[in-house]
Amino acid sequence: MDRPIFVTRPDMPPLEELEPMLRQIWQSRILTNGGEFHARLEQELARYLDVPYVSLTANGTLSLMLALRALGIEQGEVITTPYSFVATTHALQWSGLRPVFADISPKGFALDPDRVEEQITPRTKAILAVHVYGHPCDCAGLRRVAGRYGLPLIYDASHAFGVRMQGRSLLEQGDMATLSFHATKVFNTIEGGAVICRSLAMKQEIDRLRNFGFAGETEITGIGINAKLDELRCAYGLAALRHVDDAIARRRSLDAIYRRELGAVPALTVPPAPAEDVEWNYSHFPVLVPQGRDRLYERLKSDGILTRRYFYPLITDFEPYRTLLASQKICEAPNARRAADSVLCLPLYPDLPEQTLLRITDLIKKYC
Amino acid sequence: MDRPIFVTRPDMPPLEELEPMLRQIWQSRILTNGGEFHARLEQELARYLDVPYVSLTANGTLSLMLALRALGIEQGEVITTPYSFVATTHALQWSGLRPVFADISPKGFALDPDRVEEQITPRTKAILAVHVYGHPCDCAGLRRVAGRYGLPLIYDASHAFGVRMQGRSLLEQGDMATLSFHATKVFNTIEGGAVICRSLAMKQEIDRLRNFGFAGETEITGIGINAKLDELRCAYGLAALRHVDDAIARRRSLDAIYRRELGAVPALTVPPAPAEDVEWNYSHFPVLVPQGRDRLYERLKSDGILTRRYFYPLITDFEPYRTLLASQKICEAPNARRAADSVLCLPLYPDLPEQTLLRITDLIKKYC
Repeated sequence: MDRPIFVTRPDMPPLEELEPMLRQIWQSRILTNGGEFHARLEQELARYLDVPYVSLTANGTLSLMLALRALGIEQGEVITTPYSFVATTHALQWSGLRPVFADISPKGFALDPDRVEEQITPRTKAILAVHVYGHPCDCAGLRRVAGRYGLPLIYDASHAFGVRMQGRSLLEQGDMATLSFHATKVFNTIEGGAVICRSLAMKQEIDRLRNFGFAGETEITGIGINAKLDELRCAYGLAALRHVDDAIARRRSLDAIYRRELGAVPALTVPPAPAEDVEWNYSHFPVLVPQGRDRLYERLKSDGILTRRYFYPLITDFEPYRTLLASQKICEAPNARRAADSVLCLPLYPDLPEQTLLRITDLIKKYC
Repeated sequence: MDRPIFVTRPDMPPLEELEPMLRQIWQSRILTNGGEFHARLEQELARYLDVPYVSLTANGTLSLMLALRALGIEQGEVITTPYSFVATTHALQWSGLRPVFADISPKGFALDPDRVEEQITPRTKAILAVHVYGHPCDCAGLRRVAGRYGLPLIYDASHAFGVRMQGRSLLEQGDMATLSFHATKVFNTIEGGAVICRSLAMKQEIDRLRNFGFAGETEITGIGINAKLDELRCAYGLAALRHVDDAIARRRSLDAIYRRELGAVPALTVPPAPAEDVEWNYSHFPVLVPQGRDRLYERLKSDGILTRRYFYPLITDFEPYRTLLASQKICEAPNARRAADSVLCLPLYPDLPEQTLLRITDLIKKYC
């Protein structure tokens, strides 16, 4: 290992598979604002993901902003999790919404429906939950709470590409689900994302909003934005999609080796894989190190193994949110804090050599 | 002409010039979040544009949102123009700012400093002006008004790539200027944009904000967003930049033919080119047709010539803004209205054949 091992590495389709599509783009000169590859990628993703409607976007943050606007969630509070990538909450802020944080479940990494319910007030406008590491949230519990108060329920499913539960796509849960296709994700379009819609009308609304709200040359139906995914990235996505099953299979086998090697190390806990009725995507390999997580992180780093403390610090501990929360009833979120203080995501990507993985697990056993 | 002639056509570098860079990206697997091509494009653009600091972004709308946030313009009103692409005002809305509209000058297409001054109140937080068609605003007048009231002045310079005035880049005017590198622009990165900053500190703030506000793995300095331009688009931009001088030269010669052919047609007015001390980029070729503009537009369309009524309708006439303005002192903006009701942008792009252009001008003469 003569170079650093990153926590993840983009999974890229062979350049040769992209080249014929590039030549076609150079011939048509259709670069963005829709186009053949854009239409094909939306169709192929809907089929692959087994969902009714996919609207492509320029990235996962913009997906969330579009979903909130399309659902008419404006002004007020949205209950969400402090244990996520900060984009989840930033999207609320850009949408003029105030994040209110609830704790995660004591088991797992996602919002606890009971803790969500405690935070609901007349100012609450929606619930925004995150399928952290592609582990499904307690969807039944969240649906119950959202239904009881008539609140829209949105899932940030950035980690949950391809995840299925009880034989159906996890992305069908909630009023909308959003995806990120950032380079580091199980499926990527370099930068990109999508909104999963339950109805054609909703897809059409997202499609308009991602192109400034235009519904024709001279009409606008809402305050849109530019969230268009261009033809090059769509072509890349079409090529990448052909390989994603193989990539997930490879992730699964690496996940199994990690579990075998680390399952019995007393100083750390390997969180269980999702329940048996879940087809998972093995997007991350988190371990919990209650004592000395940062020391382990640093020691591995000095060996050229760049693990990541996803998600540390909690969103509520970042400066702009600390200031915001100073005027808010603080949510203590002990479960989220425990996770943030002990989690370490280990390198996991399809072409991580097994030998490298075993070297990583050997080092961890040595240091723990 | 056996296919429609669009108002513009993307100017693309030869695919062969991109290919070695693509191979390098496939080798390095650095796809986004900075990278060699990103750094090089920022440097080469700063040199080409003759400005101190360039921060690349994912598109022009996000450029504006980042500029407003970096300057700390939050809550309150921003005085802007109704005669622009709607993204100018959408960016204010996404930033929690209320657009207040002022009229454009009776000559030209940009904000009239006197009309801006009339709209200033204690709620005013900034002025957002647009160099429409790359024609410089009355920068001295706007600077005087902004200075008198201590207001930040931002230029949406989406049309003004490469424009110089009195020997200096127009992009140096104001506290910040933003660019769009959309496929239709004089210089494009397919989708993309930039913020032109006057100081390194401001560039660094934009750089953090476009990557969620991160200032290291565990620190965030502001409510950022994802506005990253990926390595593929940066590589494309590097190849495109080599050809932009030729493209502008070609635009200039087409502009001259249009002027020669249409200058004496009584039914229309060709707005004069910018003053002699301006090096222009010939981004658009607008004509003003006070009577029967829409009829001309339709007749040309039926001949397969797709001109565009940039900018019609006025932003203030789009539904979401009509509603917003219902509660606001309405700005009548007769000059902007006159422009919107008479303007027609004719096809102009570097590889528009001269013969096609002459066919367009012949048809216009026939119909007028």
